[in-house]
Amino acid sequence: MKSPGCPLCEGPGGAIVFQGDRFRVIRSAEAGLPAFYRLVWSAHVREFSDLAPADRHLCIDAVACVEEALRRHLDPVKLNLATLGNAVPHLHWHIVARFEWDSHFPGAPWAAAQRQVAPEAQARIEALLPPLEADIAARLAALPGNRTAT
Amino acid sequence: MKSPGCPLCEGPGGAIVFQGDRFRVIRSAEAGLPAFYRLVWSAHVREFSDLAPADRHLCIDAVACVEEALRRHLDPVKLNLATLGNAVPHLHWHIVARFEWDSHFPGAPWAAAQRQVAPEAQARIEALLPPLEADIAARLAALPGNRTAT
Repeated sequence: MKSPGCPLCEGPGGAIVFQGDRFRVIRSAEAGLPAFYRLVWSAHVREFSDLAPADRHLCIDAVACVEEALRRHLDPVKLNLATLGNAVPHLHWHIVARFEWDSHFPGAPWAAAQRQVAPEAQARIEALLPPLEADIAARLAALPGNRTAT
Repeated sequence: MKSPGCPLCEGPGGAIVFQGDRFRVIRSAEAGLPAFYRLVWSAHVREFSDLAPADRHLCIDAVACVEEALRRHLDPVKLNLATLGNAVPHLHWHIVARFEWDSHFPGAPWAAAQRQVAPEAQARIEALLPPLEADIAARLAALPGNRTAT
Protein backbone atom coordinates (compact mmCIF):
# COMPACT_ATOMS: atom_id res chain seq x y z
CA MET A 1 0.00 0.00 0.00
CA LYS A 2 3.06 2.27 -0.36
CA SER A 3 3.78 4.37 -3.41
CA PRO A 4 7.46 4.83 -4.36
CA GLY A 5 8.53 8.46 -4.18
CA CYS A 6 5.59 9.57 -2.06
CA PRO A 7 6.92 11.64 0.86
CA LEU A 8 4.06 10.54 3.13
CA CYS A 9 4.79 6.87 2.36
CA GLU A 10 8.53 7.26 2.83
CA GLY A 11 8.62 9.42 5.97
CA PRO A 12 6.38 10.62 8.80
CA GLY A 13 6.00 14.15 7.35
CA GLY A 14 6.29 15.90 10.72
CA ALA A 15 6.63 15.30 14.44
CA ILE A 16 4.54 12.25 15.33
CA VAL A 17 1.79 12.95 17.88
CA PHE A 18 -0.09 9.67 17.43
CA GLN A 19 0.74 6.58 15.41
CA GLY A 20 -2.04 4.07 14.84
CA ASP A 21 -2.56 1.23 12.39
CA ARG A 22 -4.76 3.17 10.01
CA PHE A 23 -3.48 6.72 10.40
CA ARG A 24 -1.04 8.95 12.22
CA VAL A 25 -1.24 12.53 13.44
CA ILE A 26 1.75 14.80 13.00
CA ARG A 27 2.55 18.36 14.01
CA SER A 28 3.75 20.53 11.19
CA ALA A 29 6.08 23.42 11.98
CA GLU A 30 4.54 26.38 10.17
CA ALA A 31 5.78 29.86 11.05
CA GLY A 32 2.89 32.04 12.15
CA LEU A 33 0.44 29.14 12.49
CA PRO A 34 1.51 27.58 15.79
CA ALA A 35 -1.06 24.75 15.98
CA PHE A 36 -1.00 23.09 12.57
CA TYR A 37 -1.61 19.34 12.63
CA ARG A 38 -2.09 16.75 9.94
CA LEU A 39 -3.86 13.43 10.00
CA VAL A 40 -2.14 11.16 7.48
CA TRP A 41 -3.90 7.99 6.34
CA SER A 42 -1.42 5.09 6.47
CA ALA A 43 -2.30 3.52 3.13
CA HIS A 44 -1.48 5.45 -0.03
CA VAL A 45 -5.02 6.52 -0.91
CA ARG A 46 -5.57 9.42 -3.27
CA GLU A 47 -9.02 10.78 -2.47
CA PHE A 48 -11.20 10.82 0.65
CA SER A 49 -13.95 9.08 -1.32
CA ASP A 50 -11.55 6.23 -2.13
CA LEU A 51 -11.98 5.10 1.49
CA ALA A 52 -14.66 2.54 2.26
CA PRO A 53 -17.57 4.11 4.19
CA ALA A 54 -16.46 2.73 7.57
CA ASP A 55 -12.95 4.10 7.04
CA ARG A 56 -14.36 7.49 6.02
CA HIS A 57 -16.19 7.62 9.33
CA LEU A 58 -13.12 6.51 11.28
CA CYS A 59 -11.03 9.12 9.47
CA ILE A 60 -13.45 11.99 10.06
CA ASP A 61 -14.10 10.92 13.67
CA ALA A 62 -10.35 11.13 14.22
CA VAL A 63 -10.21 14.56 12.55
CA ALA A 64 -13.07 15.75 14.80
CA CYS A 65 -11.28 14.27 17.82
CA VAL A 66 -8.18 16.35 17.06
CA GLU A 67 -10.40 19.38 16.46
CA GLU A 68 -12.08 18.93 19.85
CA ALA A 69 -8.71 18.69 21.62
CA LEU A 70 -7.49 21.85 19.87
CA ARG A 71 -10.61 23.72 20.92
CA ARG A 72 -10.37 22.55 24.51
CA HIS A 73 -6.69 23.32 25.01
CA LEU A 74 -6.13 26.39 22.84
CA ASP A 75 -9.50 28.17 22.62
CA PRO A 76 -8.91 29.19 18.99
CA VAL A 77 -11.21 31.65 17.26
CA LYS A 78 -11.81 29.10 14.47
CA LEU A 79 -10.81 25.64 13.29
CA ASN A 80 -9.84 25.00 9.69
CA LEU A 81 -10.07 21.52 8.15
CA ALA A 82 -8.96 20.61 4.65
CA THR A 83 -7.79 17.78 2.46
CA LEU A 84 -6.19 19.10 -0.70
CA GLY A 85 -3.30 16.89 -1.83
CA ASN A 86 -2.61 18.69 -5.09
CA ALA A 87 1.14 18.45 -4.50
CA VAL A 88 1.18 15.23 -2.43
CA PRO A 89 -1.79 13.09 -3.47
CA HIS A 90 -1.69 10.81 -0.40
CA LEU A 91 -4.76 11.33 1.79
CA HIS A 92 -4.03 13.74 4.62
CA TRP A 93 -6.18 16.21 6.51
CA HIS A 94 -4.95 19.58 7.65
CA ILE A 95 -6.34 20.48 11.09
CA VAL A 96 -5.42 24.03 11.99
CA ALA A 97 -6.35 26.09 15.04
CA ARG A 98 -6.70 29.71 14.00
CA PHE A 99 -6.20 32.88 16.02
CA GLU A 100 -7.03 36.46 15.12
CA TRP A 101 -3.36 37.33 15.49
CA ASP A 102 -1.96 34.46 13.42
CA SER A 103 -0.03 35.08 10.22
CA HIS A 104 -2.94 34.45 7.84
CA PHE A 105 -6.20 35.20 9.67
CA PRO A 106 -8.89 35.65 8.37
CA GLY A 107 -7.36 34.23 5.20
CA ALA A 108 -6.87 30.52 4.59
CA PRO A 109 -3.57 28.95 5.67
CA TRP A 110 -2.75 28.71 1.93
CA ALA A 111 -3.45 32.36 1.15
CA ALA A 112 -0.80 35.06 1.43
CA ALA A 113 0.41 35.86 4.94
CA GLN A 114 -1.09 39.07 6.30
CA ARG A 115 1.28 39.82 9.18
CA GLN A 116 4.27 38.75 11.20
CA VAL A 117 3.36 37.06 14.45
CA ALA A 118 4.68 38.44 17.74
CA PRO A 119 7.10 35.87 19.25
CA GLU A 120 5.27 36.06 22.63
CA ALA A 121 1.97 35.07 21.04
CA GLN A 122 3.56 32.13 19.22
CA ALA A 123 5.40 31.07 22.42
CA ARG A 124 2.22 31.23 24.49
CA ILE A 125 0.59 28.64 22.22
CA GLU A 126 3.72 26.51 21.91
CA ALA A 127 3.79 26.14 25.70
CA LEU A 128 0.35 24.56 25.53
CA LEU A 129 1.24 21.97 22.90
CA PRO A 130 2.75 19.18 25.07
CA PRO A 131 -0.42 18.62 27.17
CA LEU A 132 -2.56 19.14 24.05
CA GLU A 133 -0.65 16.46 22.18
CA ALA A 134 -0.81 14.02 25.09
CA ASP A 135 -4.59 14.54 25.07
CA ILE A 136 -4.82 14.04 21.30
CA ALA A 137 -2.92 10.75 21.59
CA ALA A 138 -5.13 9.55 24.46
CA ARG A 139 -8.34 10.49 22.65
CA LEU A 140 -7.27 8.78 19.43
CA ALA A 141 -6.12 5.63 21.23
CA ALA A 142 -9.61 5.42 22.74
CA LEU A 143 -11.47 6.13 19.49
CA PRO A 144 -13.83 3.27 18.59
CA GLY A 145 -12.67 1.41 15.49
CA ASN A 146 -9.15 2.73 15.65
CA ARG A 147 -7.49 -0.54 16.64
CA THR A 148 -8.92 -2.54 13.75
CA ALA A 149 -6.12 -3.88 11.56
CA THR A 150 -6.22 -3.17 7.83
CA MET B 1 -31.21 28.33 14.59
CA LYS B 2 -30.54 31.43 12.42
CA SER B 3 -27.99 34.07 13.26
CA PRO B 4 -28.85 37.67 12.32
CA GLY B 5 -26.43 39.10 9.80
CA CYS B 6 -25.04 35.73 8.72
CA PRO B 7 -25.03 35.60 4.90
CA LEU B 8 -25.55 31.81 4.91
CA CYS B 9 -28.57 32.16 7.21
CA GLU B 10 -30.07 35.03 5.24
CA GLY B 11 -29.53 33.76 1.68
CA PRO B 12 -28.64 30.61 -0.24
CA GLY B 13 -25.05 31.73 -0.95
CA GLY B 14 -25.03 30.42 -4.53
CA ALA B 15 -27.08 28.56 -7.10
CA ILE B 16 -28.98 25.81 -5.30
CA VAL B 17 -28.18 22.29 -6.55
CA PHE B 18 -29.86 20.42 -3.69
CA GLN B 19 -31.99 21.63 -0.80
CA GLY B 20 -32.60 19.25 2.07
CA ASP B 21 -33.76 19.67 5.64
CA ARG B 22 -30.31 19.52 7.18
CA PHE B 23 -28.12 20.99 4.46
CA ARG B 24 -28.07 22.37 0.95
CA VAL B 25 -25.52 22.19 -1.86
CA ILE B 26 -24.80 25.28 -3.90
CA ARG B 27 -22.63 26.03 -6.93
CA SER B 28 -20.31 28.96 -6.47
CA ALA B 29 -19.26 30.94 -9.54
CA GLU B 30 -15.49 31.21 -9.23
CA ALA B 31 -13.53 32.36 -12.26
CA GLY B 32 -10.91 29.80 -13.18
CA LEU B 33 -12.33 27.09 -10.90
CA PRO B 34 -15.32 25.87 -12.92
CA ALA B 35 -16.58 23.16 -10.54
CA PHE B 36 -16.68 24.78 -7.10
CA TYR B 37 -19.49 23.55 -4.85
CA ARG B 38 -20.37 24.19 -1.22
CA LEU B 39 -22.34 22.10 1.21
CA VAL B 40 -23.99 24.48 3.67
CA TRP B 41 -25.37 23.10 6.92
CA SER B 42 -28.87 24.53 7.49
CA ALA B 43 -28.49 25.36 11.18
CA HIS B 44 -26.08 28.11 12.16
CA VAL B 45 -23.33 25.91 13.57
CA ARG B 46 -19.82 27.27 13.94
CA GLU B 47 -17.52 24.25 13.91
CA PHE B 48 -17.72 20.77 12.38
CA SER B 49 -17.19 19.30 15.85
CA ASP B 50 -20.26 21.18 17.11
CA LEU B 51 -22.36 18.66 15.20
CA ALA B 52 -23.58 15.57 17.04
CA PRO B 53 -21.76 12.42 15.85
CA ALA B 54 -24.65 11.22 13.68
CA ASP B 55 -24.86 14.63 11.99
CA ARG B 56 -21.09 14.63 11.42
CA HIS B 57 -21.44 11.36 9.57
CA LEU B 58 -24.43 12.59 7.57
CA CYS B 59 -22.52 15.76 6.69
CA ILE B 60 -19.35 13.99 5.59
CA ASP B 61 -21.31 11.28 3.75
CA ALA B 62 -22.98 14.08 1.81
CA VAL B 63 -19.62 15.72 1.10
CA ALA B 64 -18.24 12.37 -0.14
CA CYS B 65 -21.37 11.92 -2.26
CA VAL B 66 -20.74 15.24 -4.02
CA GLU B 67 -17.07 14.31 -4.40
CA GLU B 68 -17.99 11.00 -6.04
CA ALA B 69 -20.33 12.72 -8.49
CA LEU B 70 -17.64 15.26 -9.39
CA ARG B 71 -15.14 12.47 -10.02
CA ARG B 72 -17.56 10.49 -12.13
CA HIS B 73 -18.73 13.35 -14.33
CA LEU B 74 -15.64 15.55 -14.61
CA ASP B 75 -12.63 13.25 -14.15
CA PRO B 76 -10.68 15.90 -12.22
CA VAL B 77 -7.01 15.43 -11.41
CA LYS B 78 -7.77 15.99 -7.71
CA LEU B 79 -10.58 16.83 -5.33
CA ASN B 80 -10.16 19.49 -2.66
CA LEU B 81 -12.33 19.53 0.48
CA ALA B 82 -12.22 22.19 3.17
CA THR B 83 -14.22 23.83 5.91
CA LEU B 84 -12.65 27.12 6.93
CA GLY B 85 -15.28 29.69 7.91
CA ASN B 86 -12.87 32.36 9.07
CA ALA B 87 -14.91 35.05 7.35
CA VAL B 88 -18.34 33.37 7.55
CA PRO B 89 -18.41 31.11 10.63
CA HIS B 90 -21.48 29.11 9.56
CA LEU B 91 -20.55 25.50 8.82
CA HIS B 92 -19.97 24.97 5.11
CA TRP B 93 -17.72 22.64 3.16
CA HIS B 94 -15.95 23.63 -0.02
CA ILE B 95 -15.91 20.78 -2.54
CA VAL B 96 -13.76 21.68 -5.52
CA ALA B 97 -12.85 19.60 -8.56
CA ARG B 98 -9.33 20.54 -9.64
CA PHE B 99 -7.73 20.40 -13.07
CA GLU B 100 -4.11 20.87 -14.06
CA TRP B 101 -5.13 23.83 -16.21
CA ASP B 102 -7.31 25.58 -13.61
CA SER B 103 -6.43 29.03 -12.32
CA HIS B 104 -4.75 27.84 -9.09
CA PHE B 105 -3.41 24.32 -9.64
CA PRO B 106 -1.39 22.93 -7.87
CA GLY B 107 -2.02 25.66 -5.30
CA ALA B 108 -5.02 25.71 -3.02
CA PRO B 109 -8.15 27.53 -4.21
CA TRP B 110 -7.30 30.21 -1.61
CA ALA B 111 -3.72 30.73 -2.76
CA ALA B 112 -2.77 33.21 -5.46
CA ALA B 113 -3.97 32.42 -8.97
CA GLN B 114 -1.23 31.04 -11.19
CA ARG B 115 -2.73 31.52 -14.62
CA GLN B 116 -5.69 32.65 -16.68
CA VAL B 117 -7.91 29.83 -17.84
CA ALA B 118 -8.61 29.36 -21.53
CA PRO B 119 -12.32 30.04 -22.17
CA GLU B 120 -12.64 26.74 -24.10
CA ALA B 121 -11.41 24.72 -21.11
CA GLN B 122 -13.82 26.48 -18.76
CA ALA B 123 -16.68 26.04 -21.26
CA ARG B 124 -15.95 22.33 -21.68
CA ILE B 125 -16.48 21.78 -17.94
CA GLU B 126 -19.47 24.12 -17.74
CA ALA B 127 -21.25 22.03 -20.37
CA LEU B 128 -20.97 19.02 -18.08
CA LEU B 129 -22.47 20.72 -15.02
CA PRO B 130 -26.23 20.26 -15.68
CA PRO B 131 -26.10 16.42 -15.72
CA LEU B 132 -23.56 16.48 -12.88
CA GLU B 133 -25.88 18.58 -10.74
CA ALA B 134 -28.90 16.41 -11.51
CA ASP B 135 -26.82 13.44 -10.36
CA ILE B 136 -25.71 15.23 -7.17
CA ALA B 137 -29.32 16.03 -6.31
CA ALA B 138 -30.42 12.43 -6.95
CA ARG B 139 -27.57 10.97 -4.89
CA LEU B 140 -28.22 13.30 -1.97
CA ALA B 141 -31.97 12.69 -2.02
CA ALA B 142 -31.18 8.95 -1.70
CA LEU B 143 -28.57 9.37 1.05
CA PRO B 144 -29.55 7.43 4.17
CA GLY B 145 -30.42 9.74 7.06
CA ASN B 146 -30.91 12.76 4.87
CA ARG B 147 -34.68 13.00 5.28
CA THR B 148 -34.63 13.07 9.05
CA ALA B 149 -36.10 16.30 10.37
CA THR B 150 -34.02 18.42 12.76
